[in-house]
Amino acid sequence: MRRSQLFTKTQKQAPADEVSKNAQLLLRAGYISKQMAGAYEFMPLGLRVLNNIIEIIRQEMNAIGGQEILMTGLQKPDNWQASGRWSDEVVDVWFKTKLASGAEIGLANTHEEALTSTLRQFINSYKDLPVYPYQFQTKFRNELRAKSGIMRGREFIMKDLYSFSIDKDQHNEFYELITQSYLNIFERLGIGESTFLTFASGGSFAKYSHEFQTICDAGEDEIYLDRSRKLAVNKEVYNDEVLTDLKLDKTKLEKVKAAEVGNIFTLDTKFSKDLGLNFTTKQGGQQPVFMGSYGIGPGRTMGVITELLADEKGLVWPEGIAPYDMYLIRVGDDHDMVRQADKLYDDLIKLGKAVLYDDRNEGVGKMLADAELMGIPTRVLISEKSLGAGGLEVRQRTEADSKVIGIDEFLNKL
Amino acid sequence: MRRSQLFTKTQKQAPADEVSKNAQLLLRAGYISKQMAGAYEFMPLGLRVLNNIIEIIRQEMNAIGGQEILMTGLQKPDNWQASGRWSDEVVDVWFKTKLASGAEIGLANTHEEALTSTLRQFINSYKDLPVYPYQFQTKFRNELRAKSGIMRGREFIMKDLYSFSIDKDQHNEFYELITQSYLNIFERLGIGESTFLTFASGGSFAKYSHEFQTICDAGEDEIYLDRSRKLAVNKEVYNDEVLTDLKLDKTKLEKVKAAEVGNIFTLDTKFSKDLGLNFTTKQGGQQPVFMGSYGIGPGRTMGVITELLADEKGLVWPEGIAPYDMYLIRVGDDHDMVRQADKLYDDLIKLGKAVLYDDRNEGVGKMLADAELMGIPTRVLISEKSLGAGGLEVRQRTEADSKVIGIDEFLNKL
Repeated sequence: MRRSQLFTKTQKQAPADEVSKNAQLLLRAGYISKQMAGAYEFMPLGLRVLNNIIEIIRQEMNAIGGQEILMTGLQKPDNWQASGRWSDEVVDVWFKTKLASGAEIGLANTHEEALTSTLRQFINSYKDLPVYPYQFQTKFRNELRAKSGIMRGREFIMKDLYSFSIDKDQHNEFYELITQSYLNIFERLGIGESTFLTFASGGSFAKYSHEFQTICDAGEDEIYLDRSRKLAVNKEVYNDEVLTDLKLDKTKLEKVKAAEVGNIFTLDTKFSKDLGLNFTTKQGGQQPVFMGSYGIGPGRTMGVITELLADEKGLVWPEGIAPYDMYLIRVGDDHDMVRQADKLYDDLIKLGKAVLYDDRNEGVGKMLADAELMGIPTRVLISEKSLGAGGLEVRQRTEADSKVIGIDEFLNKL
Repeated sequence: MRRSQLFTKTQKQAPADEVSKNAQLLLRAGYISKQMAGAYEFMPLGLRVLNNIIEIIRQEMNAIGGQEILMTGLQKPDNWQASGRWSDEVVDVWFKTKLASGAEIGLANTHEEALTSTLRQFINSYKDLPVYPYQFQTKFRNELRAKSGIMRGREFIMKDLYSFSIDKDQHNEFYELITQSYLNIFERLGIGESTFLTFASGGSFAKYSHEFQTICDAGEDEIYLDRSRKLAVNKEVYNDEVLTDLKLDKTKLEKVKAAEVGNIFTLDTKFSKDLGLNFTTKQGGQQPVFMGSYGIGPGRTMGVITELLADEKGLVWPEGIAPYDMYLIRVGDDHDMVRQADKLYDDLIKLGKAVLYDDRNEGVGKMLADAELMGIPTRVLISEKSLGAGGLEVRQRTEADSKVIGIDEFLNKL
């Protein structure tokens, strides 16, 4: 993509009303735009990052047998009345609205009820189990305050997978599999080293649920972390009984602020009983399906990556989720320089690289500052000076120094 | 994908309350599920078709300079108050809801206002124009009646592109370009021959808008069609003046029912004036941006393709948008047959084919009926009988007869 074509612009200052670091930087770099607190629009670069994150999650979900679907935002009340979650007093983040007929409907904040209801037409026998439908779908949650940028939205895309199993044993097998899958995902997203499997409250269905918590000052959680075992306990269940249960040594635990980037729950037969999702067992009896739910917010994760990796100069994207692999800067606009830079751009694209090509002929300081702010992994500068020194000035976003590499050598290395 | 793993099932009968042909067939084939009238959930096969349609549209939008973004469903009132479209009396399909603070907000039924407002931060000069942002985004429209299956939803994904140009000339150039792009899209979607550029009312902004109307009994429109010129006029503007203007001969026009699969509008400076989206001209003056909007509903298009191409046995998908290229049926389950069919499945995947492999060992009649109902382009059957006759029994969904082809010959042809 030529920068001269990209319609977004960078800004030196974030809007005064934006308090979160992730939104400030993403707004300044033109990755997002704000509709209202908790509802952000994704501009081209932001959408590319979001889609890269989604694609990594999709690959990992497919690898463990996930089947992708897409549920609706609009929800009729009956399924939620069956589970007891229609009431605003039970679920305090509902957005509700009305059909033209006057009937009240809601906007989905999660999909246990809808999917359990839908699966009644597909699950009859133990032979139909297990199944693992998942989706990337827009959730709506009426948060009272929404000041964490894209880390806590009133509207956000969620990856939610639901597991439907014969019994607790079959469920536990998958629960372990997806735990590992989540760790793979956060590793691939570049935050593996800072992300820890965390024991949290299991609610009324299980002893524990599990969160994936990333150490992050902007996080809303506090966790007690055993780094050597790569395990943590959420403050909400931090007590002597739990520590004993998990064989954790109080004196070795570190208390840190963290952001929840994923969570997995055992739901037992709560929803299958409420909504009548039963199956015929091998022995011919009827039994409710054993369920679990597994969430990751790609937008929130993008926010956490921003908070964690950005530096004073701007965003820093890991390879694989960056909107482009390279930011190519052309200094000067005489005929020969344009020809050489254009050829380099074409060659890089032919090599399969995603390149954002700054062909605007702005001042070099402005172009360098934009490259830093946008956080693209590799910066490649071509100028008379760099050519005089032997080729291209190449710098990794995460390194302090640039080096000059011959054009052919640079292309051959890719 | 092995059919034994796919969690959906086919049904012989559609639900009694479902009146539209597209929803009846898609429900029976397990492509969709119904949350409520006008809000359908996409199951794995349905989502694959929807995504194939989206990908074709995306390629064509990118090819004419479109830049993909993602706007929010939630909308604050101020932009819509500025354009005069916040009132339920002006726009009768609003879903409105309230923030926890009590402030009223709406769910986007279109995005002229939001995007025009957002672009104020990016467009300052004539040098910033033209720009063509677009998205695939979930729209909400509070339709009084929703009986057309996925052809008219209360919730549906829309591709909406908006053009921002310096003036009418620059606008017209793009308008012609995207007209051709839309025709390409419907050609690639397999409904090109039945889809016609149709003159419709331009509202207050232009003499005409243009619709892309597909001849279809389930359509809600009536058009007057000149087949030789591949042009039509919507009934709403069918009068002598318009016919003269378009040089159409009344006696050559055919009146047909049609479904609108796309529309393109000239918006002039309506929204840029209302929302203050101005730019500095070459001469240094201030001028409002000249706009257009361009919609295609991928879900509606999927419904129209269903209505148009399905036959008495079920769905019929064109290549390129079908959920799988092939439906492979294995008859019998003795060791040798399983080994041969599994190997064929692996070989087809290695050749890059998307294959739905019916490995369930159901009765052959049931498997054949499922293959027909699901509408996958090529059906490949392997059985002792077919092997005895020389190989595989291969049938195209749109052809009456199958033929036997040797396994190696079949693979070599791909």
